[in-house]
Amino acid sequence: MAALFRGYRNFYKRSNRHVELTLVSCRSMASKTPVGFIGLGNMGTPMARNLLKHGYPVIATDVFPESFKELQDSGAQILDCPAEVADKADRIITMLPSSPNVIEVYTGPSGILKKVKKGTLLIDSSTINPAVSKEMAVAAEKMGAVFMDAPVSGGVGAASLAKLTFMVGGVEEEFNAAQELLTCMGANVVYCGQVGSGQAAKICNNMLLGIGMIGTAETMNLGIRLGLDPKLLAKILNMSSGQCWSSDKYNPVPGVMEGVPSANNYQGGFGTTLMAKDLGFAQDSATSTLTPIPLGSLAHQIYRAMCTCGYANKDFSSVFQFLREEGV
Amino acid sequence: MAALFRGYRNFYKRSNRHVELTLVSCRSMASKTPVGFIGLGNMGTPMARNLLKHGYPVIATDVFPESFKELQDSGAQILDCPAEVADKADRIITMLPSSPNVIEVYTGPSGILKKVKKGTLLIDSSTINPAVSKEMAVAAEKMGAVFMDAPVSGGVGAASLAKLTFMVGGVEEEFNAAQELLTCMGANVVYCGQVGSGQAAKICNNMLLGIGMIGTAETMNLGIRLGLDPKLLAKILNMSSGQCWSSDKYNPVPGVMEGVPSANNYQGGFGTTLMAKDLGFAQDSATSTLTPIPLGSLAHQIYRAMCTCGYANKDFSSVFQFLREEGV
Amino acid sequence: MAALFRGYRNFYKRSNRHVELTLVSCRSMASKTPVGFIGLGNMGTPMARNLLKHGYPVIATDVFPESFKELQDSGAQILDCPAEVADKADRIITMLPSSPNVIEVYTGPSGILKKVKKGTLLIDSSTINPAVSKEMAVAAEKMGAVFMDAPVSGGVGAASLAKLTFMVGGVEEEFNAAQELLTCMGANVVYCGQVGSGQAAKICNNMLLGIGMIGTAETMNLGIRLGLDPKLLAKILNMSSGQCWSSDKYNPVPGVMEGVPSANNYQGGFGTTLMAKDLGFAQDSATSTLTPIPLGSLAHQIYRAMCTCGYANKDFSSVFQFLREEGV
Amino acid sequence: MAALFRGYRNFYKRSNRHVELTLVSCRSMASKTPVGFIGLGNMGTPMARNLLKHGYPVIATDVFPESFKELQDSGAQILDCPAEVADKADRIITMLPSSPNVIEVYTGPSGILKKVKKGTLLIDSSTINPAVSKEMAVAAEKMGAVFMDAPVSGGVGAASLAKLTFMVGGVEEEFNAAQELLTCMGANVVYCGQVGSGQAAKICNNMLLGIGMIGTAETMNLGIRLGLDPKLLAKILNMSSGQCWSSDKYNPVPGVMEGVPSANNYQGGFGTTLMAKDLGFAQDSATSTLTPIPLGSLAHQIYRAMCTCGYANKDFSSVFQFLREEGV
Repeated sequence: MAALFRGYRNFYKRSNRHVELTLVSCRSMASKTPVGFIGLGNMGTPMARNLLKHGYPVIATDVFPESFKELQDSGAQILDCPAEVADKADRIITMLPSSPNVIEVYTGPSGILKKVKKGTLLIDSSTINPAVSKEMAVAAEKMGAVFMDAPVSGGVGAASLAKLTFMVGGVEEEFNAAQELLTCMGANVVYCGQVGSGQAAKICNNMLLGIGMIGTAETMNLGIRLGLDPKLLAKILNMSSGQCWSSDKYNPVPGVMEGVPSANNYQGGFGTTLMAKDLGFAQDSATSTLTPIPLGSLAHQIYRAMCTCGYANKDFSSVFQFLREEGV
Repeated sequence: MAALFRGYRNFYKRSNRHVELTLVSCRSMASKTPVGFIGLGNMGTPMARNLLKHGYPVIATDVFPESFKELQDSGAQILDCPAEVADKADRIITMLPSSPNVIEVYTGPSGILKKVKKGTLLIDSSTINPAVSKEMAVAAEKMGAVFMDAPVSGGVGAASLAKLTFMVGGVEEEFNAAQELLTCMGANVVYCGQVGSGQAAKICNNMLLGIGMIGTAETMNLGIRLGLDPKLLAKILNMSSGQCWSSDKYNPVPGVMEGVPSANNYQGGFGTTLMAKDLGFAQDSATSTLTPIPLGSLAHQIYRAMCTCGYANKDFSSVFQFLREEGV
Repeated sequence: MAALFRGYRNFYKRSNRHVELTLVSCRSMASKTPVGFIGLGNMGTPMARNLLKHGYPVIATDVFPESFKELQDSGAQILDCPAEVADKADRIITMLPSSPNVIEVYTGPSGILKKVKKGTLLIDSSTINPAVSKEMAVAAEKMGAVFMDAPVSGGVGAASLAKLTFMVGGVEEEFNAAQELLTCMGANVVYCGQVGSGQAAKICNNMLLGIGMIGTAETMNLGIRLGLDPKLLAKILNMSSGQCWSSDKYNPVPGVMEGVPSANNYQGGFGTTLMAKDLGFAQDSATSTLTPIPLGSLAHQIYRAMCTCGYANKDFSSVFQFLREEGV
Repeated sequence: MAALFRGYRNFYKRSNRHVELTLVSCRSMASKTPVGFIGLGNMGTPMARNLLKHGYPVIATDVFPESFKELQDSGAQILDCPAEVADKADRIITMLPSSPNVIEVYTGPSGILKKVKKGTLLIDSSTINPAVSKEMAVAAEKMGAVFMDAPVSGGVGAASLAKLTFMVGGVEEEFNAAQELLTCMGANVVYCGQVGSGQAAKICNNMLLGIGMIGTAETMNLGIRLGLDPKLLAKILNMSSGQCWSSDKYNPVPGVMEGVPSANNYQGGFGTTLMAKDLGFAQDSATSTLTPIPLGSLAHQIYRAMCTCGYANKDFSSVFQFLREEGV
């Protein structure tokens, strides 16, 4: 009822350009109608499973048949292609590795938009270029559907435990509808603004993370060279103005913390290639908005150079090892 | 008594090279004998006043007579030069602006070491090159005195409220003696290792701080350009892996936080020149230890370039303004 | 005749996918048929005038009517829009400020491709993203036309004196045809490879130029601070391994050379904004090809930061002034 | 006679502080009295041999006896230590690997200054910190001797062929005397100014060289990734504003040029460690003079990081290999 009311309010406030919002808001939010899920990789599978756990029927697909099995066993219905999913569900979540995949899944020959129904809510949790998110939103709007970007912070572990953070961009009127589903999969769901804002927030966070990690690695290395004990130095930084997430929660120096990639030869975690990819988006966004990002650019280049020196698949905190003379 | 025992233990453990430690440890720690204080600037004056508050007689000096007045009114005795202070006190704290001042105050013609008594405890809270701290320690040891470096984290406010953090380097046996005095002036007193370690820890902290601040400024600026609300972006970063002290406690974007320099046109706080100076120490230390510090170097260069563009005396968080197109 | 023969050879060698090349090569290269010219700015006008001087009738257009006058007086025929030019000429040169202008002029509603004739040779001398050049080539090929990119090195002076360097990308068989026209406007015409290669070469050159200029400015400034005479230092660099075009031909220090922007308060020359734009293309290309360009990135950021500090419209060699403490 | 006259002129002009210059200038410049040479390494041995070729008796020493043999066979007299050389020769050249060696050879227990004669001309061709050169000059002046710094540009090949460039700092009145000897060993002898200026010029040149080489490597790599032929790209750069010594005379891409380290798996040439060392001097000088050198700093860090990744002993142009994904 609240949703209906909201729909009417929008009707009056925003004139007939958005008249279809009334319809959109008629999507049932109370009963658990099927939810589409496209992209059943390391992240997508546990995310979709958390929807099932909350009682939502899931209709899914993926280009790789071997990705189906696990979710099928958990009770999901598997279809052939995104278009068929769109034919059966009016709420669809996508979780894909890169911009071209997103473009294909939405606008390709058997893509979502081929059969999408008016009023369908499309939530893309992939991390992609914000410009692509905006293009998808325009394409969806032409079909009467609503596209929101909702990239995540947190890895496979957080996905399994439903502890992801979702950064959501799109029309504010639809945020509640998105939140209903996203809270099944994450601990935090933050509304960031218009379409693309979720990606923007994700990019910003990861740029500062990427800078902070290299800064922490340099600082720890310098301190060790100057004779300081690494654990003591980490303690001092963390009680002072040098503190950051990388020094505090994910220290890159082996022996300082347990349960982080540096304690496990930099395996697992967030690969250097992925960090380089995200900083590439930051770089693109900065170039196109004429924004100077000197440290962000240099961090991007350092992760890029690491990829040339054998660190591509190690956790990005291996920059500590990359910078140590004795390291390699 | 414990102190005496500690002295004997050292005697046996470390052989006669450190036999004078027995004497050193005979310095009374119970009764409040006078404490020397040299360097009565913005930081030194409130620090010395806190010693007075704790009941220690203070014997002080400074090269600028106008610096005396305030502390004299608070009850300190003012002498002509460091040598005279050393003649009257067997515990001396120095708080000076730069390496040459420290060299002059310790080894100059009317410096401390001209009249220092055997067993005197010398604590230098200046932020200087760790190499100079080590030289001073050697010179002090020749006269039978003990030198410790104890630079501070925290500004004038923290000095007044006795909330400084001291990072202490020097012989471990003397740490308790130093701690007795330093706890009157600070909230945290951390033992970092041999002489110079305090400076090393300070340099490391400030390098990571300097990097984190520019990283935060770039990130906030990029986010704003991409359409994000600054307060919202700060909130997202601070709940995610981008979090750092600069984003969380000292945000450089006007309007995001109260009570920080960015809320006051970047006045007060920690001047860009001072940050550039500290990063110069980091650079020197990295060069001499062959340690790569790519982001630290670039941060140094950015603060240095800011000094050429009119930001020398603004708080270092004004890097946000420096990087904004509309800023200047 | 050679051209015809070349056409046949291609016909056999490359199969019917390129059968239209036979037609293309039938464009008369001996008689001086009209040449289209679109974009009559500071560069385009003198370029088009040089075509007139060589006896080519010129049919031109520009969005700004005030740009017409000068060329019209020199004997060019002015038409309303690019489509009309394409209707009248089978060789067209475009010289436009940015990628969106190029896209509009070629593919817009009254763009060249609306009325382009089969076999028309399209030469774009704008400096744009190589990816856009490739898109234009694909679009032109669909209409049976041939697109080549031919960005220039050299400024307004070189354009007037027909001393430009053209870096040409496109099918090799058409290079002679392009060269016939380009030699009227430039001293060097270099074939670089497939479409987009001209832009790639231009971007590479300007990236190294941008790095060399900042490097020269830093080096000269450091030497001056160390007590060296600037003219003497320039002389030493130029006879040693530090030599580069910026130290040798375009020294950024006032008083070292005559006839360069540093001798004229950094007026004229190549604006900082334009250098920042070109380095943005370098950055984009590097990001998309996963190429590390640490100095190129930092140079980009420095020119970008200069734009925030009042140097946007000065010659890019003003980076010397930006880096000097006394400079501002 | 001219020398004598010059001596008198100085006597009157510069007052009795420099009265000893009269004596200095009495050193015979016509007859070939013995020249001391200390430091018989890869550079020193061919340099000293060139003095012998020009008819100067050479009195030499080195800490490593195995270094003696070659020069002894060429006719040089070998003595035990620098002090003994100073006892026998009133013109001495030193060519040593680093600042501590220079300090030892001049001021150590059996150093030059122990037995130096009044008026002796001391020429140090080592590449060291300019601050150390100045200290040595002060120490020499106390003994009545004259110290000049004269570091070289050019490697072992240039040393053998007497094609070195000498950059000379020191009192101008003594430049002719230094030049007499240096022209036997080099093709260019450039007077740079007061003591330390030779080092300053060397540092400046090598900083710009170090920047230019990385810039060239990045640019060539980017161009290759964008599809350009490396030889063609080098040709384009070298005829355009991107030209620099590294692109033109010492191209870092295998296959572009013959006779350079890139044609020989980066063996020989100028080691990455040595470039990192020289950029360390640049960094120190910049830090102490508060000069921003953003690209110089980053170049320093990149060569430093290369040392951590197995490139320490390769020619510094191997930065091209370091930056290529397929490279390692």
